[in-house]
Amino acid sequence: MYAVFRWCFIFWLPLFLICCEQQRDGDLDIQAESRTRENKPPKRYGSVIRIKPEMVEKYRELHAEPWPEISAQIYRNNIRNYSIFLKDDYLFAYFEYIGKDFAADMAAMAMDSMTQEWWKLTDPCQVPLESRKKGEWWASMEEVFHQH
Amino acid sequence: MYAVFRWCFIFWLPLFLICCEQQRDGDLDIQAESRTRENKPPKRYGSVIRIKPEMVEKYRELHAEPWPEISAQIYRNNIRNYSIFLKDDYLFAYFEYIGKDFAADMAAMAMDSMTQEWWKLTDPCQVPLESRKKGEWWASMEEVFHQH
Repeated sequence: MYAVFRWCFIFWLPLFLICCEQQRDGDLDIQAESRTRENKPPKRYGSVIRIKPEMVEKYRELHAEPWPEISAQIYRNNIRNYSIFLKDDYLFAYFEYIGKDFAADMAAMAMDSMTQEWWKLTDPCQVPLESRKKGEWWASMEEVFHQH
Repeated sequence: MYAVFRWCFIFWLPLFLICCEQQRDGDLDIQAESRTRENKPPKRYGSVIRIKPEMVEKYRELHAEPWPEISAQIYRNNIRNYSIFLKDDYLFAYFEYIGKDFAADMAAMAMDSMTQEWWKLTDPCQVPLESRKKGEWWASMEEVFHQH
């Protein structure tokens, strides 16, 4: 009788413990991801530039179907949730940066030959603000308010 | 012997099955949340307004420490990831809406007495664009590009 009891115990108990451990690991993964999301939010960037009224339609068309290489480069350089908004002759860009070295990622983007080709099409649509900082094309903005 | 075997089986099997079911439910929850995130992204809103140069500092101060009631109302009306950016005499607002009836949520916000008090302070800082649509204060913008 004890032999059978032992057999049952040996057979089911490890399965039960393995199953509990998997459940616990799953819970810890979710907690870890949640912590990362809360404690290390991406850095938000807002920037502004003017657009030539006669180039609005061309700019719209270009951005309705951006080249896949451009999208891939943006992603590779750690930019996420990237929108460009238009009103009158103003463009506003918003994105979130999830990398560790923004300057290095922006430099890598500027070095990319496809991005350079893309900018040859988009730059002539735009008129940079005179008040922009040295070295900027799009003028960086100050975030005066944020609520998660 | 069979009695003991049956006892072991009856005792451990339900525990094992319950444990497996919990694990499966956890997996399904994660899948469901992932699907929601991918297939039902929030709707993004961009809007723009001008600011009186002499009111910039007051506007900055107000938004550095917004009233808790205002933050709560914004949250209650399903607005998330809300930023306001400043450059020269322009303010740009970006937020994500996770509710089902934007017009109803905005109407509820406009009806809130604390929000009305808040707007009595912020409205005099701002100069709405003449090109804004009827009924707007902040002028809504067109999203011409988005990359997740």
